[in-house]
Amino acid sequence: MFRDALERSAGAVRDRLQQAILAQPGGELRDAMAYATRGGKGLRGFLVVEGARLHGLNGAGPLNAGAAVEALHAYSLVHDDLPCMDDDDLRRGQPTVHVKWNEATATLAGDALQTLAFELLARPETAADPAIRIALVARLAAASGAAGMVHGQALDIAAETAATPLDLAQITRLQQAKTGALIEWSATAGAVLAGADPAPLARYSRALGLAFQLADDILDIEGDADAAGKRLRKDASAGKATFVSLLGLEGARSRARELVAEAEAALMPFGADGETLRQAARFVIERDS
Amino acid sequence: MFRDALERSAGAVRDRLQQAILAQPGGELRDAMAYATRGGKGLRGFLVVEGARLHGLNGAGPLNAGAAVEALHAYSLVHDDLPCMDDDDLRRGQPTVHVKWNEATATLAGDALQTLAFELLARPETAADPAIRIALVARLAAASGAAGMVHGQALDIAAETAATPLDLAQITRLQQAKTGALIEWSATAGAVLAGADPAPLARYSRALGLAFQLADDILDIEGDADAAGKRLRKDASAGKATFVSLLGLEGARSRARELVAEAEAALMPFGADGETLRQAARFVIERDS
Repeated sequence: MFRDALERSAGAVRDRLQQAILAQPGGELRDAMAYATRGGKGLRGFLVVEGARLHGLNGAGPLNAGAAVEALHAYSLVHDDLPCMDDDDLRRGQPTVHVKWNEATATLAGDALQTLAFELLARPETAADPAIRIALVARLAAASGAAGMVHGQALDIAAETAATPLDLAQITRLQQAKTGALIEWSATAGAVLAGADPAPLARYSRALGLAFQLADDILDIEGDADAAGKRLRKDASAGKATFVSLLGLEGARSRARELVAEAEAALMPFGADGETLRQAARFVIERDS
Repeated sequence: MFRDALERSAGAVRDRLQQAILAQPGGELRDAMAYATRGGKGLRGFLVVEGARLHGLNGAGPLNAGAAVEALHAYSLVHDDLPCMDDDDLRRGQPTVHVKWNEATATLAGDALQTLAFELLARPETAADPAIRIALVARLAAASGAAGMVHGQALDIAAETAATPLDLAQITRLQQAKTGALIEWSATAGAVLAGADPAPLARYSRALGLAFQLADDILDIEGDADAAGKRLRKDASAGKATFVSLLGLEGARSRARELVAEAEAALMPFGADGETLRQAARFVIERDS
């Protein structure tokens, strides 16, 4: 069962990350960091572990790299939920960090989670070869900074006050930066750890990331807020362009199916070994949260 | 003249950082990042360049490492100035980032400046040997995260609502985390780049960092807000314990002088070459901003 494979890998990564957070000095900051990384599907950590397994690797390296990307993803959610950003009170069915503590603690917890991501990648146990560790650091910085995820978030905020809604090419670029780059980092980290060519899994993850965002936009319209664990229909109510507003519900569903087929095709070089990642691609468009 | 040496090194580091920011995609995010890193004394970047010079190194390595620590320092100031943190409208004599743009842009610009710091350290031009680059990354993460700078900021916020003011040992630990760790990173980066023992400059910078904070507390009481370019007397008006409230003005001045002597003594192994760093130690307790 795919959900078992997801939960097994995601759970091992989550444990590794909790352990790294518990090694920090105690206090509200540490409590907030642990809280912010406790839930979630763990898709990014799973992709790291599974991509590494395809290259014959397991153990501390993939777990640290998976924990790093989950820490980085959690930081982006904590800051994204702040009143000055998306102003969300609920995340993964629980109060957001600034609601449970306060905005200062949420700002600092997000900041420290970003730092922890790079700290985890730099640990010798992540890879004996420092060239591999620094490659992971360079790729994560490129995927998440002012040319990656944060760039996508800034474009997203700018779109809210833009005179004209974004077109399909602009939305695609925005989402590639905002969520696609980090998903690509996750799926290719195992190849980087193994010193192998990351190109096949990069192709896989670009299709997967876009399918994931199409599914998110469909969920935002059709989903159940209880199952999703967060506020829905906020894009539609904000009048923002989404894949659904541009393609229609049926058009978005059909494009998501095409992308899943593309993702599956990219796994051909791995033969039967790629089955779990094939199932992951189908999962991202069938999930309810 | 020491001020010329400071401005020469700090200026070269500032140019390097502006160049790295200008290479990011355009928009408000990039504008805010460039704005947040334009002013300031540049003491941390200067310490990197000067520490590297003492080990016979100059060029892209020290400039990138200096730009990295200045990006990291700027991120901490942008987030520290937010309304939910210190709520400051003025920094380096100019409106703070959230006043000039808005809180969302300030949050994202700070986030992206932190990422840029790690990205700069990971560049091959910073050091040909990846083991040196990953050592710089690991040390910067340790100095700035949940066990370093951000830990110090969290302790500082907790102190504001604590029932009893902090004592001297607690204030010293808080400041060592909040500002000392990053100053130590800066002074020792050159030794790390050269593959040399960072211990002498670590000793120097621990005394320097504490003297710097004593001088800050003295400036907060005695300083001129126009010269400092920021709001003063906020610690005293908040009833917070500082080195001055615990030691008195004369006691704080005399402790700062002792620390400068300690910093100078730590430079003995470098002989006459250490003169600029000796002047830097005297500068931190004589500056007016």
